[in-house]
Amino acid sequence: MKTAAVIMAGGRGERFWPKSRNSRPKQFLSLTSDGETMIQKTVKRLRPLVDAEDIYIVTNAAYTDLVAEQLPDVPKENILAEPCARNTAPCIAFAAAVIGKKCEDAVMLVLPSDHLIGYEDIYLRTLKKAVKVCEEGQNLVTIGITPTYAETGYGYINFGKESGDAYEVERFVEKPDLPTAKKYLASGKYLWNSGMFVWKVSSIMANLRKLMPDVYEGALRIADSYGTDKYTETLVKEYTAFTSESIDFGIMEKASDIYTIPGSFGWDDVGSWLAVERINETDDNKNYIDGDVISIDSERTTICGGRRLIAAVGVEDLIIVDTDDAVLVCSKNNTQDVKKVIAQLKEHGRNELV
Amino acid sequence: MKTAAVIMAGGRGERFWPKSRNSRPKQFLSLTSDGETMIQKTVKRLRPLVDAEDIYIVTNAAYTDLVAEQLPDVPKENILAEPCARNTAPCIAFAAAVIGKKCEDAVMLVLPSDHLIGYEDIYLRTLKKAVKVCEEGQNLVTIGITPTYAETGYGYINFGKESGDAYEVERFVEKPDLPTAKKYLASGKYLWNSGMFVWKVSSIMANLRKLMPDVYEGALRIADSYGTDKYTETLVKEYTAFTSESIDFGIMEKASDIYTIPGSFGWDDVGSWLAVERINETDDNKNYIDGDVISIDSERTTICGGRRLIAAVGVEDLIIVDTDDAVLVCSKNNTQDVKKVIAQLKEHGRNELV
Repeated sequence: MKTAAVIMAGGRGERFWPKSRNSRPKQFLSLTSDGETMIQKTVKRLRPLVDAEDIYIVTNAAYTDLVAEQLPDVPKENILAEPCARNTAPCIAFAAAVIGKKCEDAVMLVLPSDHLIGYEDIYLRTLKKAVKVCEEGQNLVTIGITPTYAETGYGYINFGKESGDAYEVERFVEKPDLPTAKKYLASGKYLWNSGMFVWKVSSIMANLRKLMPDVYEGALRIADSYGTDKYTETLVKEYTAFTSESIDFGIMEKASDIYTIPGSFGWDDVGSWLAVERINETDDNKNYIDGDVISIDSERTTICGGRRLIAAVGVEDLIIVDTDDAVLVCSKNNTQDVKKVIAQLKEHGRNELV
Repeated sequence: MKTAAVIMAGGRGERFWPKSRNSRPKQFLSLTSDGETMIQKTVKRLRPLVDAEDIYIVTNAAYTDLVAEQLPDVPKENILAEPCARNTAPCIAFAAAVIGKKCEDAVMLVLPSDHLIGYEDIYLRTLKKAVKVCEEGQNLVTIGITPTYAETGYGYINFGKESGDAYEVERFVEKPDLPTAKKYLASGKYLWNSGMFVWKVSSIMANLRKLMPDVYEGALRIADSYGTDKYTETLVKEYTAFTSESIDFGIMEKASDIYTIPGSFGWDDVGSWLAVERINETDDNKNYIDGDVISIDSERTTICGGRRLIAAVGVEDLIIVDTDDAVLVCSKNNTQDVKKVIAQLKEHGRNELV
């Protein structure tokens, strides 16, 4: 059975401003010293399992050139351009329908483009298990991450009975508060929802038909036009008509017969600037320093330099990011508030900085 | 009797890096929102007491154009260019000799170019008193500042018996440690040494002849050549031969018959970036913000912007200064260590940034 991969690359990565911009979001940036971008790493680690011609990138129309430039091995026709953002359900339906037109019984991996994986062999072994479970006929499989602490920023998967290599999913739950998250960990029955899914094209299409019929029909019409001169026109017409919906809410929380496979492969969702010191080497004072920097008596500080010198003197627990037109100086306790900067910029119509 | 003013403008202002550079030190910068530079303020506040043609600027030869540009009212021939830095004693001797050649019984005010005065009327009244004391024949007069707290970064003047508008100086003392500074304040007999002096040209020349004969002789030879075609040659020859010495150590700590007049006129030596929030208005969160800045939940932070946007998110007690080629992010507890940045830059031969 053919295995295809769908990489979702439509995100804006606002929390990585000022490096991440509308014109070049997080997944197209390198946040590691090796210079590889997030999406390049995502594709590279998949290649032992999936051929280049079976890798599909769903992204905003504005980013198709960036994708083509960063992923030359992926066929141009596999770059699926969303005319507008409609969250993950329409995105996945779009890709599933297109893949299904080529090969209806393919198993498809659905993966974010901007996460990091520390243990790639274990990651691949986990995905292979998921593919096998699907091939054996199970409906929908999600990769759960075995929690290492009581994170309140992720959704959780409550699993039940063991079934071969997987566990039956009891329910998906939204981001918990800290006491609840601690209960989840103590129970030993909750995994982090990583947003990685594996299923047969036929399975996800069947669920879409039942739970999101409009998206199902629209996706089929797009797929029918795929490769014809009606494609762009149909895509814009159908896609803009979709209502915005996440795959978790639209399908996973409503569907039955869902399975999860626990994964433990050094997954990092690279959710904020705090991730940079986690995923890179730091110096003796626990600073991560990149670029032209003079640091004097500074500790636990992340500095991402640009073209100019950055001098950090006696500072602690800061994120300092320099670009040609903007500098961010942010307390590590406030990395989520970087979004507020973008909100203010938009409010004042300063879109060149967003 | 004529009153002349000598403004010492040869300093480098290293603690105001990155705004202050070798090519444009602190005294030629504006650190207040009105846009006036420090030296412009210094001259402006003096004008009610001293005519423009009696104001002399002693500065490094590299800065004569800056002085002429910023102080168009001061006659070009009053800009005295030091061929090299030799501290304040040779600087004052040079000016005294030149002024003495024109008018031997002038009273001269010696003033730094990079301090701020909050109460200019009181300041002028204090200087007038000092001039009067000198005209009445006293030897050397120094303006002491009535301390408002136990500062350890200034030298102190220990005064004794009252004498007319002044007090006899017992001794000058170097920067004390904190317990000592507290004792000084408790005694009620110590003033801050502001580096402002008033004396007759004839008095300071007499003291130089006695205590620093080489400098005295050299300064006279420079003055003799002043206005002739031998001036530059003589100046370079004599000035480079001077040994570096402060007026405090070379004269004040050794001379007798010294008087001090206590001043209390909102004096600020603008000694580090910390001064900026003292001398400017701050917002409700005690931030001083200048330039294109977005501040979110930041407190007690000084931000001097340049051409780019600076976003400060959740930071406290920082100094952030942006220029075209360097950014400083400094803890308020470490403002003195800005000099260490310059030391490292010099060490690596990066003089374009110094």
